[in-house]
Amino acid sequence: MVYFECDYTEGALPEILQRLHDTNFEQTLGYGEDEHCARAAQLIKSACGVSDADVHFLVGGTQTNSTVINSILRPHQGVIACSSGHINVHETGAIEACGHKVLAVCGEDGKITAAQADDMISGHFADPTAEHMVQPGMVYISFPTETGTIYSKAELAAIKQVCGRHGVPLFIDGARLGYGLMAESCDVTLHDIAELSDVFYIGGTKVGALFGEAVVITNNNLKKDFRYIMKQHGAMLAKGRILGIQFEVLFEKDEDNGNIRYFNAAKHGIDQAMRIREAFKSAGAEMSGKSVTNQQFVILNEKQINKLSEKYGFEVWESVKENSYLCRFCTSWASKAENVDKLIADIKIIF
Amino acid sequence: MVYFECDYTEGALPEILQRLHDTNFEQTLGYGEDEHCARAAQLIKSACGVSDADVHFLVGGTQTNSTVINSILRPHQGVIACSSGHINVHETGAIEACGHKVLAVCGEDGKITAAQADDMISGHFADPTAEHMVQPGMVYISFPTETGTIYSKAELAAIKQVCGRHGVPLFIDGARLGYGLMAESCDVTLHDIAELSDVFYIGGTKVGALFGEAVVITNNNLKKDFRYIMKQHGAMLAKGRILGIQFEVLFEKDEDNGNIRYFNAAKHGIDQAMRIREAFKSAGAEMSGKSVTNQQFVILNEKQINKLSEKYGFEVWESVKENSYLCRFCTSWASKAENVDKLIADIKIIF
Amino acid sequence: MVYFECDYTEGALPEILQRLHDTNFEQTLGYGEDEHCARAAQLIKSACGVSDADVHFLVGGTQTNSTVINSILRPHQGVIACSSGHINVHETGAIEACGHKVLAVCGEDGKITAAQADDMISGHFADPTAEHMVQPGMVYISFPTETGTIYSKAELAAIKQVCGRHGVPLFIDGARLGYGLMAESCDVTLHDIAELSDVFYIGGTKVGALFGEAVVITNNNLKKDFRYIMKQHGAMLAKGRILGIQFEVLFEKDEDNGNIRYFNAAKHGIDQAMRIREAFKSAGAEMSGKSVTNQQFVILNEKQINKLSEKYGFEVWESVKENSYLCRFCTSWASKAENVDKLIADIKIIF
Amino acid sequence: MVYFECDYTEGALPEILQRLHDTNFEQTLGYGEDEHCARAAQLIKSACGVSDADVHFLVGGTQTNSTVINSILRPHQGVIACSSGHINVHETGAIEACGHKVLAVCGEDGKITAAQADDMISGHFADPTAEHMVQPGMVYISFPTETGTIYSKAELAAIKQVCGRHGVPLFIDGARLGYGLMAESCDVTLHDIAELSDVFYIGGTKVGALFGEAVVITNNNLKKDFRYIMKQHGAMLAKGRILGIQFEVLFEKDEDNGNIRYFNAAKHGIDQAMRIREAFKSAGAEMSGKSVTNQQFVILNEKQINKLSEKYGFEVWESVKENSYLCRFCTSWASKAENVDKLIADIKIIF
Repeated sequence: MVYFECDYTEGALPEILQRLHDTNFEQTLGYGEDEHCARAAQLIKSACGVSDADVHFLVGGTQTNSTVINSILRPHQGVIACSSGHINVHETGAIEACGHKVLAVCGEDGKITAAQADDMISGHFADPTAEHMVQPGMVYISFPTETGTIYSKAELAAIKQVCGRHGVPLFIDGARLGYGLMAESCDVTLHDIAELSDVFYIGGTKVGALFGEAVVITNNNLKKDFRYIMKQHGAMLAKGRILGIQFEVLFEKDEDNGNIRYFNAAKHGIDQAMRIREAFKSAGAEMSGKSVTNQQFVILNEKQINKLSEKYGFEVWESVKENSYLCRFCTSWASKAENVDKLIADIKIIF
Repeated sequence: MVYFECDYTEGALPEILQRLHDTNFEQTLGYGEDEHCARAAQLIKSACGVSDADVHFLVGGTQTNSTVINSILRPHQGVIACSSGHINVHETGAIEACGHKVLAVCGEDGKITAAQADDMISGHFADPTAEHMVQPGMVYISFPTETGTIYSKAELAAIKQVCGRHGVPLFIDGARLGYGLMAESCDVTLHDIAELSDVFYIGGTKVGALFGEAVVITNNNLKKDFRYIMKQHGAMLAKGRILGIQFEVLFEKDEDNGNIRYFNAAKHGIDQAMRIREAFKSAGAEMSGKSVTNQQFVILNEKQINKLSEKYGFEVWESVKENSYLCRFCTSWASKAENVDKLIADIKIIF
Repeated sequence: MVYFECDYTEGALPEILQRLHDTNFEQTLGYGEDEHCARAAQLIKSACGVSDADVHFLVGGTQTNSTVINSILRPHQGVIACSSGHINVHETGAIEACGHKVLAVCGEDGKITAAQADDMISGHFADPTAEHMVQPGMVYISFPTETGTIYSKAELAAIKQVCGRHGVPLFIDGARLGYGLMAESCDVTLHDIAELSDVFYIGGTKVGALFGEAVVITNNNLKKDFRYIMKQHGAMLAKGRILGIQFEVLFEKDEDNGNIRYFNAAKHGIDQAMRIREAFKSAGAEMSGKSVTNQQFVILNEKQINKLSEKYGFEVWESVKENSYLCRFCTSWASKAENVDKLIADIKIIF
Repeated sequence: MVYFECDYTEGALPEILQRLHDTNFEQTLGYGEDEHCARAAQLIKSACGVSDADVHFLVGGTQTNSTVINSILRPHQGVIACSSGHINVHETGAIEACGHKVLAVCGEDGKITAAQADDMISGHFADPTAEHMVQPGMVYISFPTETGTIYSKAELAAIKQVCGRHGVPLFIDGARLGYGLMAESCDVTLHDIAELSDVFYIGGTKVGALFGEAVVITNNNLKKDFRYIMKQHGAMLAKGRILGIQFEVLFEKDEDNGNIRYFNAAKHGIDQAMRIREAFKSAGAEMSGKSVTNQQFVILNEKQINKLSEKYGFEVWESVKENSYLCRFCTSWASKAENVDKLIADIKIIF
């Protein structure tokens, strides 16, 4: 059985395991104050083209989102997000558990527009009864989105411009950041992400690490006491160096092609996803949505699903019409090309 | 430089790294629903002598404490704890951040007594103005305590009896559980811990794992929907198998001596701590407190501190009187015997 | 200037002020444990046809909603509500501030259907990833709704049946309860409200009191420790008798017609609202929505608005099309018939 | 039976009831935006000698404390308070429910010292592990304290100086403010209170009002969006004018002696308390504590308690030694001189 169900089915890049082995008996300070974390932060700042950002290493996505958002908002403020945003759907109310409403916007393709953010913020402050409503205190977007789409540089810049005008920080959830940046049609770079947001994170869990998310805070106003709030959220790993080591490996340059390993890992996942996408399209399948990243959505009938399910794991999301189901195939840094070869061969057969 | 500063200066048991390597490209389900977690849970239940407990794997101690406590208390309830308890001092208010007061009891040697718990609970319900005060909703104790002491079986049984009588769950924080159970003077077993509490956790971070805490819920009333609350707390690791694999290794029997590896690891830390303790005592140093575990507290003068600091890292906690400081030396599963040899030799010299 | 802007523009029924005067120097216990509160609770239970409900007196609507909801939900649970529900829109995130997501349902005319509630609850528990989402833990409806509509007895019974089947409590926000029950087309009685919910409240603030809401808990499982949570929410008035006295007056029978004063007060408000409604309809105005209660919504043009605004206060909610605005006229127990006469005369003139 | 049990046994100053009657059918805006609130705020600012403070009217003490504290602190911050402080003991964890730890200081006579506050704040920031602990974010003191004592002007100034030096706001809980300011030995004025704090409140509930607390924010940094947080806490009364009217009456000058009514009301309570105190002292009773305000603490034996209990209500707090109990007699603006006469006569008899 080969799984294309999600992007966290395997462990980590072998280089990461090797480095953990090599450093295992080094003695270091705890809580992220070791030299590996320091070096990893340096590598990340360099890759982002920012010299004075604060970089923090956290364990997982939900934890990172709630820590960042909780560190920024005052009690009466909420966070604007696309209704399909991870914080609005799949974090068991972690944001509300910190006291804050997610101000959901009905977006398209998992994205919100600058105009939507502007309307919500302007509308709030123009309302004479504003005090009776949750005040928009920040904007949250996912890059790439939960449905695999990406914002263009122009779209990002427009959202940032709106945020700047209203004094409302922009937070980019980069749980799958690598897969977004490596998408063929992507015109956004990691430098742009750093420049066009106030705080964002680089997801390790889904792009080559055992676990770990690197938060980058570029807006000076958001830096104060972030580590206190990490600790309060249980997000300060005792052996912080485990995170530092992983991000060191991820942001070092690969010896083979000279690229940052994180990008290589993401690129591999994208390549395999595109191969699967092409196979489905060539076979005449109907793709769903506009994903350009490592999650591909295709409409299959029951017979096709049953046939593929004999050998492959993938998610059947929902019935779209009679005998038609929306299915998700997900690749990652770890997807083996030979497994994708087999899937492609089997796709040809079932159509 | 050799560090005796804390018990999380190194990585993990080599067997753990090896297993992570061996399983790296297995494809598994996420969020702790994989076979490694299932097997680890089975091994733990077996080691605890309980067949129907729920076992959950979380990442770190603060996270575990807040998740467990938040899952149990109603909004108006607080948790009784020794004033030196980790949740009362060193978690940046993580319990309060969930809405609950820590009802601190002035204990002795880091411990509370059954009588103190009884007084607080009985006193509350006897007060006609009880509704104006936080209701004691559970009892939290650390085993071993933050100052290295341990409860006797009789003490634990007495606390459990009080808790049972009042219908108030008892939660044992076992961040360093192994070091407690392996202490020479300890008359408590892992079976006792499971029997004499409603929920407890087995700390991996400080006893051989890269990270990880295994929560064991034995009281059926506390089991419902725990995973929802884990997720909300950011405590459900995407690649949950990383935790499962580590606890599998820790709770398998070691090939050399047939003991559970977790206990072997803890025993090693204890042995080294006792050697250091004996060295100080032989040299005529004044030990502080009643620690029988891997943290040893000794009174040193400035000259002694300076001398030892040339080669060793350890914590100077506080001034106790003129030119006398309380110092902590901490060992772990990873403390090398040869380093302890060197320290012992140097202790002899400075006195 | 005469105001039809909301239903809290005046003070209280003169009988309430008189009673406050008459009892002013009585000495009573604090915090709602006085005889006035006891008698008011008795009168309310009698009016509701329930003998063993718990009745608590709180100060305002937002406070009542957050106290009730907070007392019921576990941390990972949310409350299902119509997207136009007061808790979802106009309480500055008070529910989220207690840690709970409002699970908004797109209703019609301010109402949700039993089928919608059923779908949301069933859908949640059927989802294999349910643990990653907020669990529906209760259902909230407003009677009447924020737009003046009411549920029929059959609709209420159907929602209660769904709630009962899923073990999810039903909470009815009765901030304007009197105006709902006194609506001409209403087939629901106060007995029905008590029978078809698990907890509800009878709004005093908008129906004759200076302030005050009476919570009635009929479901035994929801009664425990409610007063603790009131206190924590700042909802336990020191001079609780002020609330008791007001609800005594409201639930005593009026000497003139033998009806409960609360219903008389509400009936007066409804009568005036219906007169205004008829005047607009007779004049050929387009009414908006299906309100049968004390808030009436009408479409006016700019000229009409300007003319009426010279003498009357009312709310212009939003532009509906060119030169057409949705306006709200709100009456209450305190609306003077002669003022409504004047408004009616002026309505005739402007059309 | 005559009650000396607390200072909220009666209703309100007759002038307040009269004014509520006189204004009952005025139509005003809701939520504190009416002219009565505006005028009351003006009267209060004038009485405080501050021209640009923000004044808000809330309903009760617990609500006020949690709203003010929640509006100021960031998530990782706590509030320093005397261990006997109301927020630490008698608010059912309302502060923790907002996510914040009360950092209790063992004070004397219900008071903390500037040195204690300084030690706690300086100690925190000097600790290399500060991030693992709750950061002191504000200081809370009660004036008068829960045991009837008061701070001198010098003590207040010293605390304010410490707070200012650390950039930590000082909040004065004035639930019984009038009784403190009117104490004979008090060298603090309302002007001083306003000058020597960043925010404070003037308690109405216990000093002549039906209910109500007036928050005065003098520090500009603490003013922003306070009304949002009031609303979220259910602390924005729909008929806000009820609060405005009461504080108008309280802060107008009394026709008889030209003093502000609030001070007259408090002075009356103090006078009666001093008469009771003198009676006990003359009779040879042992007074407890150093209360100079309207709560007086006296040690009585069982026989004395039984005898007095036949005619008077008062609180028996605790057993202090065999057959000796600490009892509290509490007066207020409403205590009738003739009732105090009777009590004094009976005190003479029982000794």
